[in-house]
Amino acid sequence: MRFDIITVLPGLLESPFAHSILQRAQQKGLAEIHVHNLRDYAANKHKSVDDYPYGGGSGMVMQIAPFAACIEQLQSERTYDEVIYMSPDGQTLNQSTANALALKGNLLILCGHYKGIDQRIREIFVTKEISIGDYVVSGGELPAAILVDAVIRLIPGVLSDETSALSDSFQGELLDAPVYTRPANWRGHQVPDVLLSGNEAAIAHWRYEQALARTQERRPDLLDE
Amino acid sequence: MRFDIITVLPGLLESPFAHSILQRAQQKGLAEIHVHNLRDYAANKHKSVDDYPYGGGSGMVMQIAPFAACIEQLQSERTYDEVIYMSPDGQTLNQSTANALALKGNLLILCGHYKGIDQRIREIFVTKEISIGDYVVSGGELPAAILVDAVIRLIPGVLSDETSALSDSFQGELLDAPVYTRPANWRGHQVPDVLLSGNEAAIAHWRYEQALARTQERRPDLLDE
Repeated sequence: MRFDIITVLPGLLESPFAHSILQRAQQKGLAEIHVHNLRDYAANKHKSVDDYPYGGGSGMVMQIAPFAACIEQLQSERTYDEVIYMSPDGQTLNQSTANALALKGNLLILCGHYKGIDQRIREIFVTKEISIGDYVVSGGELPAAILVDAVIRLIPGVLSDETSALSDSFQGELLDAPVYTRPANWRGHQVPDVLLSGNEAAIAHWRYEQALARTQERRPDLLDE
Repeated sequence: MRFDIITVLPGLLESPFAHSILQRAQQKGLAEIHVHNLRDYAANKHKSVDDYPYGGGSGMVMQIAPFAACIEQLQSERTYDEVIYMSPDGQTLNQSTANALALKGNLLILCGHYKGIDQRIREIFVTKEISIGDYVVSGGELPAAILVDAVIRLIPGVLSDETSALSDSFQGELLDAPVYTRPANWRGHQVPDVLLSGNEAAIAHWRYEQALARTQERRPDLLDE
């Protein structure tokens, strides 16, 4: 699977893609991540990619021409399944969207900055707009990293333990049950006896009850769906 | 405002905190971000911080002792308004939570990894559990960066244009109206005439109508609240 990301801040994405699962997925040859500097596609000598908004108002708007040049260059090299714009007014990311994207081949992700991107980019080039949640961050770079992380870990072979992703919260209908590890007693705080019992059926039952109770308490909306 | 982040992957957070608004907020002295390597608080010679889950199952669980040592060291140096654990089963982050956190002084953020952290850490030390959305990522580091970004940009003086944060999506009840910048005509795709009219009242009216229509189409739930 291949991810191309267009940004004015390629350096911001360096360390997230060079660690942990994102690094290992690339080293195993299961995913490629290519970060493109939008300024390389600016036609002016100052390499500026933004300008004042038509109609006035605060903030700068990213121009259509540099994005168009970069997108058309990449699209001349391969076909993309989706051209995704990370935006707070996009469709809210959830696990089923991540699952669906993990089945794709090539994804092109645009990161906005400042006040946003010229609306015509969205209308002409973008096929999917994704928000990671109902809050505003400085740009699309960290949301793009979140999206890539959520998708890459679902590619078969990326996680060392293949059952791990399937047993995560949101893959079933319930949140995870609490987890514990050694020591069994820490300053008097004990691990629940059942987990030390060796009784697999009792442990499975306890975990189900705990997961159900936690979901009912914290996210009853997940049970209604 | 001060953020302390505890993680097994301090390097993952280097570039996000060294760019853009997060960098400028630190340079202006408006925010401090301190990243702590959890392994520095492991008592064993291999610096391991995780172990197998009690009761069996896939994935490793982060142990209580290293987190306790790091948290207690930091709490001996200053008081924290909140000890936050980034977790998919936490309270879903939204703009009002970000607004509330931006009024705090010191925040301590714990990043989980692997299958999660020993439940006793959550019960003994954590005061607030936050999820950035209904999807699973590899660890708490990128979610912590998202949280820090969402909060820091709300601190007065961080954004160069003080009105920018207040006019973002989610600060009002509506999503943003579309934005445009030069050129007015790009391969025949025109900017809406009203934005070129210079008529401020007509522009304000058009933007309100566009914001309302976009919200009704994409996020009618925001209008019901």
